[in-house]
Amino acid sequence: MKRPLILVVNDDGISAPGIRNLIRIMNDFGDVFVVAPDSPQSGKGHAITIEATIRCDKVIIDDGPQIEYSCSGTPVDCVKLAVNQLLDRKPDLCVSGINHGSNSSINVIYSGTMSAAVEGALEGIPSIGFSLLDYAHNADFSEAEQYIRKVTKEVLENGLDDGVCLNVNIPKRIEGEEIKGLKVCRQADANWEEEFEERTDPKGRTYYWLTGKFMNYDKGTDTDEWALANHYVSVVPVQFDVTAHSSLVSVNKLLLNE
Amino acid sequence: MKRPLILVVNDDGISAPGIRNLIRIMNDFGDVFVVAPDSPQSGKGHAITIEATIRCDKVIIDDGPQIEYSCSGTPVDCVKLAVNQLLDRKPDLCVSGINHGSNSSINVIYSGTMSAAVEGALEGIPSIGFSLLDYAHNADFSEAEQYIRKVTKEVLENGLDDGVCLNVNIPKRIEGEEIKGLKVCRQADANWEEEFEERTDPKGRTYYWLTGKFMNYDKGTDTDEWALANHYVSVVPVQFDVTAHSSLVSVNKLLLNE
Repeated sequence: MKRPLILVVNDDGISAPGIRNLIRIMNDFGDVFVVAPDSPQSGKGHAITIEATIRCDKVIIDDGPQIEYSCSGTPVDCVKLAVNQLLDRKPDLCVSGINHGSNSSINVIYSGTMSAAVEGALEGIPSIGFSLLDYAHNADFSEAEQYIRKVTKEVLENGLDDGVCLNVNIPKRIEGEEIKGLKVCRQADANWEEEFEERTDPKGRTYYWLTGKFMNYDKGTDTDEWALANHYVSVVPVQFDVTAHSSLVSVNKLLLNE
Repeated sequence: MKRPLILVVNDDGISAPGIRNLIRIMNDFGDVFVVAPDSPQSGKGHAITIEATIRCDKVIIDDGPQIEYSCSGTPVDCVKLAVNQLLDRKPDLCVSGINHGSNSSINVIYSGTMSAAVEGALEGIPSIGFSLLDYAHNADFSEAEQYIRKVTKEVLENGLDDGVCLNVNIPKRIEGEEIKGLKVCRQADANWEEEFEERTDPKGRTYYWLTGKFMNYDKGTDTDEWALANHYVSVVPVQFDVTAHSSLVSVNKLLLNE
């Protein structure tokens, strides 16, 4: 059987430990093709580069068998370039990450990692975003690996529903406490309460840093936040149809009295 | 009765004719507070600025009664700054646009205009994104105005469902052909077929421009693409819960045999 073609992307940049670990793991599953940002792109959401040019150059970073391109664009640009320009056939799988930090609940819409996976799904490729709840550069990916292998194997063998990708978040490794397993969840109703830090520059002008506190308003036990708080790996199926189907009737009534 | 507080934002930048028209219209409905990007931010999706500082300065652009801030950040940054830093009470309405160009169907996830409206909804504010299907700087907003007024009035008076905002797209003005009215729709299953234009810079290095062709795969007559093609204003209720609820069962079966 032909080895599957696997596209690997991320948002922390091509040299981040998270993607280097993901490439290493994916080399066991198929022929790996990497297109990843040349610099950190966290919080870039579904941004694309339409008002500027994009650089994308072949690079060699380690002695693995993968082919790699470093790209000046966003994570979504990387997927578009790989599929529409650099590859001559559609990948069998697109994996994004391993993100350094959580992409659970509402973070999914800000996340470059998850937007790349969503873009993969848009291109008709079974796609998975992996995130580890550890922001550290030297995060420990060892316990995450078995779950990444399990999800990758199942998706490669069986695919996913059309228009759906997976948002996989993995708890931070805690010494002496094993991850309990996988939970398939819905996105929790959670949000950031922003607080901007106002500062003054050396010339006396005001500027701001975005900071914030994560607030989970959701008491459900079927959410990704519940799963992660209880030391499970959370898996949320994510779609790009953002129509609020359940509000079609109320909006019709509101605007057209129908 | 107290006049409503209306937050106005966009992605084409604070000096774009679209937002200047929207501000003029909104001044009839309430006290208008503008926080808009200092430069074009099209295609920025739900990007936020977390690795850099943000400038946000008060400006006077015309002699209207509105208060205006020009911001170096993304459209979503603008909403966050307005709500969490600059305003001392929550706006009664958030309007984004008028975008120069369509944000129908899949464009909703790339659009800075719509991401700002989604962010407004996340903050608990009834929010609407307005777009006109005319990319021209000197686009004719005159026919759009009555529909913007109608939707604004109804949303201000009656609100929207929690977690839902509106994506309103308005056909380009055609001489001798009147818009037929409003249609409440779902997001069409459409996508871009990208073609990258590869060029060589003066130093001989390759770079790319993202281009593409919009493809509507959806034959339904209940979609925004159908409405716009038939010269209706399309109104899609949009949500930020991107869980593919209908795939929870299949993913459980895939990963856990449950």
